[in-house]
Amino acid sequence: MKLSEIAQFIGAEFSGEDREITSMNTLSDASQTELSFVANVKYVKEISSSNAAAIICDSSTKDKVPSTAVALLVEFPYWQMASLTAKFAPPLEDISSPQAIIGDASIVSDKAEIARGAIVGKNCNIMAGVYIGSNAIIGDNTTLYPNVVVYRDCRVGSRCVIHAGTVIGSDGFGFASDKNGIHKKIYHIGNVVIEDDVEIGSNSSIDRAVFGTTLIKQGARLDNLIHVAHNCEIGEYSVIAGQTGLAGSSKLGRSSVFGAQSGVAGHLEIAPFNTFAARTGVTKSIKESGKVFAGFPFMDHRAWLKIQGKLARLIK
Amino acid sequence: MKLSEIAQFIGAEFSGEDREITSMNTLSDASQTELSFVANVKYVKEISSSNAAAIICDSSTKDKVPSTAVALLVEFPYWQMASLTAKFAPPLEDISSPQAIIGDASIVSDKAEIARGAIVGKNCNIMAGVYIGSNAIIGDNTTLYPNVVVYRDCRVGSRCVIHAGTVIGSDGFGFASDKNGIHKKIYHIGNVVIEDDVEIGSNSSIDRAVFGTTLIKQGARLDNLIHVAHNCEIGEYSVIAGQTGLAGSSKLGRSSVFGAQSGVAGHLEIAPFNTFAARTGVTKSIKESGKVFAGFPFMDHRAWLKIQGKLARLIK
Amino acid sequence: MKLSEIAQFIGAEFSGEDREITSMNTLSDASQTELSFVANVKYVKEISSSNAAAIICDSSTKDKVPSTAVALLVEFPYWQMASLTAKFAPPLEDISSPQAIIGDASIVSDKAEIARGAIVGKNCNIMAGVYIGSNAIIGDNTTLYPNVVVYRDCRVGSRCVIHAGTVIGSDGFGFASDKNGIHKKIYHIGNVVIEDDVEIGSNSSIDRAVFGTTLIKQGARLDNLIHVAHNCEIGEYSVIAGQTGLAGSSKLGRSSVFGAQSGVAGHLEIAPFNTFAARTGVTKSIKESGKVFAGFPFMDHRAWLKIQGKLARLIK
Repeated sequence: MKLSEIAQFIGAEFSGEDREITSMNTLSDASQTELSFVANVKYVKEISSSNAAAIICDSSTKDKVPSTAVALLVEFPYWQMASLTAKFAPPLEDISSPQAIIGDASIVSDKAEIARGAIVGKNCNIMAGVYIGSNAIIGDNTTLYPNVVVYRDCRVGSRCVIHAGTVIGSDGFGFASDKNGIHKKIYHIGNVVIEDDVEIGSNSSIDRAVFGTTLIKQGARLDNLIHVAHNCEIGEYSVIAGQTGLAGSSKLGRSSVFGAQSGVAGHLEIAPFNTFAARTGVTKSIKESGKVFAGFPFMDHRAWLKIQGKLARLIK
Repeated sequence: MKLSEIAQFIGAEFSGEDREITSMNTLSDASQTELSFVANVKYVKEISSSNAAAIICDSSTKDKVPSTAVALLVEFPYWQMASLTAKFAPPLEDISSPQAIIGDASIVSDKAEIARGAIVGKNCNIMAGVYIGSNAIIGDNTTLYPNVVVYRDCRVGSRCVIHAGTVIGSDGFGFASDKNGIHKKIYHIGNVVIEDDVEIGSNSSIDRAVFGTTLIKQGARLDNLIHVAHNCEIGEYSVIAGQTGLAGSSKLGRSSVFGAQSGVAGHLEIAPFNTFAARTGVTKSIKESGKVFAGFPFMDHRAWLKIQGKLARLIK
Repeated sequence: MKLSEIAQFIGAEFSGEDREITSMNTLSDASQTELSFVANVKYVKEISSSNAAAIICDSSTKDKVPSTAVALLVEFPYWQMASLTAKFAPPLEDISSPQAIIGDASIVSDKAEIARGAIVGKNCNIMAGVYIGSNAIIGDNTTLYPNVVVYRDCRVGSRCVIHAGTVIGSDGFGFASDKNGIHKKIYHIGNVVIEDDVEIGSNSSIDRAVFGTTLIKQGARLDNLIHVAHNCEIGEYSVIAGQTGLAGSSKLGRSSVFGAQSGVAGHLEIAPFNTFAARTGVTKSIKESGKVFAGFPFMDHRAWLKIQGKLARLIK
């Protein structure tokens, strides 16, 4: 999309040399052909070092846009960003892509649907009712049980097992809201990448990133009915028990262990090798490793046990 | 079904003029051709003003049945009501309905199943593995991602996006139980109506109403793995984050905002424009607007923070 | 698989008469042609009475293996057991089994997939997108709504209703982990048995047993988005509301009633006829019946109400 068209679409002034914008991205990840935006004071410090071709900004941030980028001045950058995602989102399926490629010795049910442009590796089992979207890539020796859905552009590694009904790559829970509380959809242009040797239980939901990637690293184990929001990262060999939910953009270090029905708030960083008892609600980032936590708001597991003891005595 | 047959089926005496009963409904919503019942003291006050053609009652409520209605006297009205729902429930699919109608420019996967009598609007995307039941109606410009299920008689508005694996219209969790704890299924004769501009994440479950409608109003946003029980109502532009659950018949006002893993007990009314922190458990109706709540049982958010602070000091 | 091959595969010494091993099982359930293992001090007392043909053990348990069994000595019995489950797991589908048998008057969608060796009873409704695995058995008069998945070897009784998207028989959340935290999959060789007259809501997940059976008994009612882990047992006529989760091997007695968003820890035994308020977290076995519990950790419901009252006064 031409920069001039973008400016016109969002009602921003634009003069100067026009150029082709290939996609949208965050300030820190945008390349020289991508459009970015700043809509939150938290990210103001990232403006000056952004490589973006253009940055949607408001009057309070316009002066910080570096000379390498075109400043697109609007009143509500977040709302305009949301509007533009509809323009950059690819179609649901790429009709013009080549036929899907299926590796040797893979068994694909005739009741599975593999969209054009997808690639399935060798020795896979793609069972009935599975959907694999355009340009999605499945590694070797991977099993997708019945009715698994892999949205377009997502990747599942080799030797993975994904149980029935699990959805990989649905849009994250992101939208802009105006002052009347009316919402505008943010199309999620990113994807999900699941590395090798990962197993995911049944009826779990792994959302794609707004921009970039929701990442589940090598050897992780996820149980049933788990919710992984957009842009999360789950460390290698992590273990996440049933009905746990991770809010957006949280990053779990290697070998994180979560008991069932746990929750992690958004935008947290959890150091590797920590363990969380069932139902823990993690509300802050954690820098130490090797600890055991419990409770909501979470605390050291022994402290939580102490509180429960005191509460029990309270009623006597 | 003839009133005389109904009476015979549930073992109630019946004399007088016979008539055709078209369906079942609550005391307050029943029309003059519908059958109702009273099985809970809470609803006794609604008997006298009911327009129902007939009312299943027991000896304690029989005298309150208005002269416009036939009183069908039984020992266990709730159990007999449950038995009768099986008689009024339509077949799983209407074989005799006309072929489904698909609007212009809609793309329907040949791996989707659209039952007879269904109507799909214009410019829709109905992806692989989707099921749309008999007489269900889908508006214009709506996307149903793979393996979405819309049960018969339900409606989804225009410009809606429903992500993969979400189920709209499954029977609610309702049954009658006898003194031995044996359950009798209540067939859910109602439906689900989702208004325009609603987006629902993946693997959520929205149950149909027993009688009447489970309603999700214009512009609401629901995340993944959400449970909406029978007869709920979700206000316009409400935002409900992942793994939240609403029990039966609760009504949320406009722009209700729920953090993840929240819960709302049954039969509550929540005033518009309230916000609930993640994991809030709402146990009572709320009449004020513009407040923020947290905790279980829920309380003012600041009060909850105070309690957490005191508990933290308890262990020192 | 020959015992000599098993020994070689796991690096155990073996001398003596070779024999055919038909499957794997727990110490207490293994038959005279099955292989078992001891990997947890909790089960040491079961070694001497085991009927297993061979037992994988380490140097601390080797001497307790009865003379009727061959002791297979390894350093890490649990890890070697996990490795062997891959050898005993059947293929995803039995290609050589006879065509599925469909009972009289059953309606099977042409978009359902019924694997070879499966049996569907009379008067069933098997709707679009349903998958029934090899050798699975469905009773009479049972309805499987769209996109229900029944994994191979599982059984669903007569007069059952399983709502859309529910998965029966996915592998449980079991794996062995080495000292680096790397996991090895435990293939789940057991199954799920759902007795007659059971109804399960939409998008629930019922995992198959590692060995043996995950059992849902006659007349139970499960709501939406429920997680039942491997080897659980749910008593007759139990009622389990939405988003509840049961951890592995827990056994609920008859007529157990759970409010929504409850949880039960693993390996517990819950006596019959107990009721649990919404969000109860059961952390210990319960021997009494007829009680009402609440809270996490759970306690008597009245005690929980008292504590909540005291906490509320704390903030004044």
